[in-house]
Amino acid sequence: MSEKEKKQSMEQKAKLEQAMLRLGLLQRKCREAKLPVLITFDGYDAAGKGLQINRLIQAFDPRGFDVYTGDRDGEEELLRPFLWRFAVKAPAAGRIVIFDTSWYRKVQMDRFDKKAGKKELKNAFADILAFEKQLTDGGVVLVKLFLTISEKEQRKRFKALEASKETAWRVSENDWKRNEQYEKYEKINQKMREQTDRPYAPWTVVDAEKKNEAALKIMNTVADAMEAALAAEAPAAQLFDGPVPPDRYQKGILAKADLSLSLPQKEYKDRLDALQKKLALLHSELYRLRIPVVLGFEGWDAAGKGGAIRRLTSHLDPRGYKVCPTASPNDEERAHHYLWRFWNNIPKAGHIAIFDRTWYGRVMVERIEGFCTETEWRRAYQEINEMEQHLVNAGAVVLKFWLHIDKDEQERRFNDRLKNPDKQWKITDEDWRNREKWDRYEEAVNEMLEKTSTKAAPWVLVEGNSKYYARVKVLETVVDALEKRIKQKEAKNG
Amino acid sequence: MSEKEKKQSMEQKAKLEQAMLRLGLLQRKCREAKLPVLITFDGYDAAGKGLQINRLIQAFDPRGFDVYTGDRDGEEELLRPFLWRFAVKAPAAGRIVIFDTSWYRKVQMDRFDKKAGKKELKNAFADILAFEKQLTDGGVVLVKLFLTISEKEQRKRFKALEASKETAWRVSENDWKRNEQYEKYEKINQKMREQTDRPYAPWTVVDAEKKNEAALKIMNTVADAMEAALAAEAPAAQLFDGPVPPDRYQKGILAKADLSLSLPQKEYKDRLDALQKKLALLHSELYRLRIPVVLGFEGWDAAGKGGAIRRLTSHLDPRGYKVCPTASPNDEERAHHYLWRFWNNIPKAGHIAIFDRTWYGRVMVERIEGFCTETEWRRAYQEINEMEQHLVNAGAVVLKFWLHIDKDEQERRFNDRLKNPDKQWKITDEDWRNREKWDRYEEAVNEMLEKTSTKAAPWVLVEGNSKYYARVKVLETVVDALEKRIKQKEAKNG
Repeated sequence: MSEKEKKQSMEQKAKLEQAMLRLGLLQRKCREAKLPVLITFDGYDAAGKGLQINRLIQAFDPRGFDVYTGDRDGEEELLRPFLWRFAVKAPAAGRIVIFDTSWYRKVQMDRFDKKAGKKELKNAFADILAFEKQLTDGGVVLVKLFLTISEKEQRKRFKALEASKETAWRVSENDWKRNEQYEKYEKINQKMREQTDRPYAPWTVVDAEKKNEAALKIMNTVADAMEAALAAEAPAAQLFDGPVPPDRYQKGILAKADLSLSLPQKEYKDRLDALQKKLALLHSELYRLRIPVVLGFEGWDAAGKGGAIRRLTSHLDPRGYKVCPTASPNDEERAHHYLWRFWNNIPKAGHIAIFDRTWYGRVMVERIEGFCTETEWRRAYQEINEMEQHLVNAGAVVLKFWLHIDKDEQERRFNDRLKNPDKQWKITDEDWRNREKWDRYEEAVNEMLEKTSTKAAPWVLVEGNSKYYARVKVLETVVDALEKRIKQKEAKNG
Repeated sequence: MSEKEKKQSMEQKAKLEQAMLRLGLLQRKCREAKLPVLITFDGYDAAGKGLQINRLIQAFDPRGFDVYTGDRDGEEELLRPFLWRFAVKAPAAGRIVIFDTSWYRKVQMDRFDKKAGKKELKNAFADILAFEKQLTDGGVVLVKLFLTISEKEQRKRFKALEASKETAWRVSENDWKRNEQYEKYEKINQKMREQTDRPYAPWTVVDAEKKNEAALKIMNTVADAMEAALAAEAPAAQLFDGPVPPDRYQKGILAKADLSLSLPQKEYKDRLDALQKKLALLHSELYRLRIPVVLGFEGWDAAGKGGAIRRLTSHLDPRGYKVCPTASPNDEERAHHYLWRFWNNIPKAGHIAIFDRTWYGRVMVERIEGFCTETEWRRAYQEINEMEQHLVNAGAVVLKFWLHIDKDEQERRFNDRLKNPDKQWKITDEDWRNREKWDRYEEAVNEMLEKTSTKAAPWVLVEGNSKYYARVKVLETVVDALEKRIKQKEAKNG
């Protein structure tokens, strides 16, 4: 080493040490400010992602970060939408999450291997962009790194790995294939970055041939992003607590529901019985054809959600369905994006998830009680539509039920519950308080039904003053939708 | 149906309804009393486990239970000890967990298929018994159900399933094989129940040919167990807060450590460098041979745990290791068995988990601060040995390090931290308070080292007044243990 090189090396070492101290300090600041940080590493095989991640994490307190690795989906993940494994691992407030290869990896592999067509690709990029927007809108500091090395360097590294018994297994046939078609793969990567570079989620390309230089660039990129986010921290969000301005949602879809619809007991029993048996058979078919099903239930207190769900599930095999009740979020849930806890219950392909109250809490109770800002709930309509679209893109049947009763019927049911010792526990002071906000809820529900009933994931308004009628309508709707999808899928499978 | 049959059927229906009401009420009581309930369903194929579980859960509020199904381990689970997937899903305080086939299933399958030898079987039953004892000692209400049907009835049900397109796929070749060798399988099951029937974890055999009778028996068994546990609820546990009686652990292993051991800087650097490079290669070998590694670090505050761990990991591939720091338990952790949160970080085969503070908190800080009862921490020595033995039975390398410094050295380091602005955050009032309890900690540590240093999972006392010496000793010990295990495994693989 010449004197000059020695000096350069010393300088670089000092810079690296400084960058690490800076990162340690910023980690503590982000923890205090409750900022979640998400760092993704993508790039060429043998570019040294593992090594660079290890250097980066040496700067952090291990109590504050998680590293998730793996460039392919596991068994559990293959059965869910491709963004699922990232969504459920997104960082909580104040924590850092590092992904060794991100949501881009699978898309790029499928593209290189020509497994994904134009339509799949378009859907995947749209899903990714919506996901990144949701994360960053939710306050996540997102750093996307892309590590590059030249074709020649890659070949050299593959050969070095192959030369040693302990590391030879790391180089796969596919790795060599991508090296041989380096230019083609490079083009795919460039295009991908162009299509997904956004101000809120920019790409940083890192030349990873020289390890120390790359490490310094990575550390500084991460530190800059954390610092910028800390500086930009908005003043305490303004909660929405004023009166709802009178607008066109006061009289909407709900007012038009025909609540006189009913069903005599005999007919109810016969039809219910037939529908339940049919549903049990369809459930087997769903499993066989690997179709995931998401059913959301919303409605007034005492509108009969629980009863409808029990009729829906009473003949199902518990191995294939799950009822997911939604209560107030716990601490861990509160520390994440509001959609996170629902991502955690997204069913595997072939399974049914039934949500007793749903992510629509954002635009109902959270809106009305001021648990989120107006900006946040207004943004939620689109976010929810995007999430449901992603589920449908992954092959899911998505249905949402609004169980509707009128105010008099609710009062009758509340009083019934009070009189029945086995049901008293079902009624709380909060139910009575919510009742007083009926008009504001009605307005919010009207707006929600209008803005989030999509072709992919429609709302079904269930006239619920007659429990018999409501239960049969729910079951019938589910049976029809499943039959339709099963036929489609069988036709597609040929 | 004769008049008599009609009457019987009516009576049965009334009994079932009553049992369901009773279960609903007991669920609410167990939630209030924070009792966790674990119900397992095992038994013959086509005995109707799914149907019976579905009937049982109709009685429960869905906010309070989870059903876990699957009679085989998934990808993630195959790479971990066979009790892992059950340990991490054990119920939190006040919740009900239902397993559709339990920890017995795999053992029984392996036995039927002659995959497990005598020794494996003996280990498996010992592991299971220890696990059930730990659960129930920890307050879990454990109900083990075994559903039986006759050979003839099973054949009938298989044929019925096969007759319909929607359900034919449910009957596998192995199912038929077990039906053909019904007697052999029955004997295995009987023996299994005999060997694992304990007062704290009794088996209940349910004749499942008649569905309503079986449902009633299951519901009443579960309800009786819940009721008995509620009745037996001990008065508030007596916390241990008296002075520690002088005993033989006051002067023990720690006093014998030679804290003058040290290493000059030059030798430290050379040996550290060589060891780190060697460890990186061994890490690849571990992965290739699918050997899991569990390293636990305990020691006095400022003894250098963090520094030793950083030297250990600095050359490792982050895809293959994880540092798991142990802070005060959060709400979810507090609602589970004290070992639960460590089960959640048990590494996959081929991966290294490094615990910065460990499950030994139970017999140190929890003992000394009175966070658990004396009965609980005294029981913990055996529980911990059993858990570690289970890991070793599953092929893991388990090492525990006690980083030891004397009281003067600790004071020097505390003062150093106070003076260094980059390190001030590392020192808290609690550190000073713990220091005042040095003698009580020393006693607890001596007892712990003596009672939990086993052949399978030894403690390594690291003389830590010299950081250089300590780091090299840690790395050397890890490298030696890994080399030894790798050789063993390669010899075994042939």
